[in-house]
Amino acid sequence: MVEMLEILGQNAREAEGAMRTLATDKKNQVLLKIARRLKERTDILLEANAADVEKGRKNGMPEGIVDRLMLTPERIRGMAEGLEQVAALEDPIGEVTGMKKRPNGLLIGQKRVPLGVVGIIYEARPNVTADAFGLCFKTGNVVILKGGSDAIRSNTAIVDCIRETLRESEVPENAIQLITDTSRETASAFMKLNRYVDVLIPRGGRGLIQAVVNQSTIPVIETGTGNCHIYVDESADLSMAADIVMNAKTQRVGVCNACESLLVHEKVKDAFLPVLAKRLFEKNVEIRADEAAASVIPGAVPATEEDWGTEYLDYIISVKVVGSVQEAIDHINRYNTGHSEAIITDNYTNAQKFLDEVDAAAVYVNASTRFTDGFEFGYGAEIGISTQKLHARGPMGLLALTTTKYIIYGNGQVRG
Amino acid sequence: MVEMLEILGQNAREAEGAMRTLATDKKNQVLLKIARRLKERTDILLEANAADVEKGRKNGMPEGIVDRLMLTPERIRGMAEGLEQVAALEDPIGEVTGMKKRPNGLLIGQKRVPLGVVGIIYEARPNVTADAFGLCFKTGNVVILKGGSDAIRSNTAIVDCIRETLRESEVPENAIQLITDTSRETASAFMKLNRYVDVLIPRGGRGLIQAVVNQSTIPVIETGTGNCHIYVDESADLSMAADIVMNAKTQRVGVCNACESLLVHEKVKDAFLPVLAKRLFEKNVEIRADEAAASVIPGAVPATEEDWGTEYLDYIISVKVVGSVQEAIDHINRYNTGHSEAIITDNYTNAQKFLDEVDAAAVYVNASTRFTDGFEFGYGAEIGISTQKLHARGPMGLLALTTTKYIIYGNGQVRG
Repeated sequence: MVEMLEILGQNAREAEGAMRTLATDKKNQVLLKIARRLKERTDILLEANAADVEKGRKNGMPEGIVDRLMLTPERIRGMAEGLEQVAALEDPIGEVTGMKKRPNGLLIGQKRVPLGVVGIIYEARPNVTADAFGLCFKTGNVVILKGGSDAIRSNTAIVDCIRETLRESEVPENAIQLITDTSRETASAFMKLNRYVDVLIPRGGRGLIQAVVNQSTIPVIETGTGNCHIYVDESADLSMAADIVMNAKTQRVGVCNACESLLVHEKVKDAFLPVLAKRLFEKNVEIRADEAAASVIPGAVPATEEDWGTEYLDYIISVKVVGSVQEAIDHINRYNTGHSEAIITDNYTNAQKFLDEVDAAAVYVNASTRFTDGFEFGYGAEIGISTQKLHARGPMGLLALTTTKYIIYGNGQVRG
Repeated sequence: MVEMLEILGQNAREAEGAMRTLATDKKNQVLLKIARRLKERTDILLEANAADVEKGRKNGMPEGIVDRLMLTPERIRGMAEGLEQVAALEDPIGEVTGMKKRPNGLLIGQKRVPLGVVGIIYEARPNVTADAFGLCFKTGNVVILKGGSDAIRSNTAIVDCIRETLRESEVPENAIQLITDTSRETASAFMKLNRYVDVLIPRGGRGLIQAVVNQSTIPVIETGTGNCHIYVDESADLSMAADIVMNAKTQRVGVCNACESLLVHEKVKDAFLPVLAKRLFEKNVEIRADEAAASVIPGAVPATEEDWGTEYLDYIISVKVVGSVQEAIDHINRYNTGHSEAIITDNYTNAQKFLDEVDAAAVYVNASTRFTDGFEFGYGAEIGISTQKLHARGPMGLLALTTTKYIIYGNGQVRG
């Protein structure tokens, strides 16, 4: 098993050189060819996926997970379209910025280059296989994928399709490799493959991400969890505030940029909360309120300390009344997960204070937290939403899969 | 012990809010005040340091380490001047870049902000205490320091001086905290303090850095080790090549950007190596050569496989003859540590190929690897040289101690 990872690692490093210098035209042609082939292979992919689904159901997989695992002709078309969109994006690799002449005549600049070998650990979502490959390939990276065991047949069929196209295109097929041994031991060993893997990106639920953060010795980009707040200030347009809360809470509940907790200034609680609660109850949202909020929301459940730190990913919202924007900021900085936070206000000072002092990847004034997303931000693609502070913060597009190296032109300079 | 770290962590998070919004003028005033006080306290600092040095010598500390540990009036002046220089640098915090209007009217930009709480683990070099604090403070970060046990009295005296000035200036004194329990258990627990520490930067030898990389669950910026190569191409100006090799190998041997290995094109080995070897031997440099190189260097020691991967940090150089620039690139990408690599050539294609294909933080044409340094690159400061690819690569100045957050101005946008 460890030997298998060693071989995979060596294969990846061998493919790295060719990927580093692959021309943009060539990368785009290959991406389009793979998109075409995925569509042509729809029947084969569906067959492999049906076997995964059948096995999953037999093992009692919940229907929510089955839904994520399942491929349909439409979803396969979606994967292909994703690759076509990535082909259409500008290639960030090779750009040189900040080239400046030093007093000693050295010309120093930073060139954008691939990260090298990217490891991706994910759960039973076969679409991640094609998506992650597309973004890594476009940025000249080699990728090693470790998908969930429940999707092994689907992933293998997708990867076969990609590798076949790479081979035909005379690009190293090891630009993508799939770890097919889905044991926990292999996963752990993979997370310590520092010699061969430059960065590890976990994609999935909180448990998976925590496991990778705790075990990996490879640099990790942490993605995902979002305990997002909306603070309704005393000067807020209350009708706008209600529309934004409804959108952020109910437009899609299972996503990381959905609103999980509402803070309301005490001066507007009477005017705002009963009206909002009515709309939330209509959508079957459970309200867990502190005492002050509960006093104006008949039907609210009492909130406990645990609620303030919980990402529900469900039709539940916690509500707390605060005395000032400062109290709101302090509460958010204590309980949030560094994802997305919003203030609804018409007060200039409070808006700027909130933007300055809330510590999160994305801080909004008068808009829904649901916009934190690579496509909404205009990146045309997304490999995840980083909730850590190193390297990338917030929605990660192609740039997040690159690094820079200094290139220095001299004419004989030595250090004195 | 773990409770102590918990308290330190809470203190740091409490100081974070005030540091996040501290005005540049105030930060600069405080840095200058600390510089003045360090100079005024020279006697007290020397006394504390003398006790560390005495204990070190009694415990058989090698003189090289004693030299790094020892403070002198000149070195204390140097620490103070370092803080004055940091005060004079531009403050990167608060800049907003890339502010763009999306089709739905949202105005999205990225604001440069502090990382938050920075942990620094280092060895017995008291100057790191003031240097690291200065850079972190200027960038609005809170710092927790864990210095080597051999420098505990010196570090405590320096930190006392800083905290006293912070208190007087009405800045939270917990902007700097020193872990005075120097046990290995405390170090390990510190590396897992994810709740309170945003990034960990180890500064020191290979052993320390590896220990941190392997144990830490906090994101780490790996710094330091440099197995740097110089490749002398067939078209090189051989006199320039010899000057550059001599500089990169002998100007200072114990540093990470010194040259450890020389690759020479076979067509110039006869003309180049005997002349260079004479100059290296004059400086008492041991030459460990492969067979082809040894055949023209009387007095060379045979190189083993181990030599290619070794960072000597000493008067030793490995030498290998290669048949092409491709062979040089492949060798470097196999054995280097991602630090600094140079080609000496007058061939345009080979120069560009080397810049493109060598995987390292800094790649040079016709210059000494010794320039990889924050001051030489014009950053006016350096917290270390990153040899990893995430977040920062190469010399890290103030920017490396910052991150960004998205700020979004809306007027009621919800997601459809």
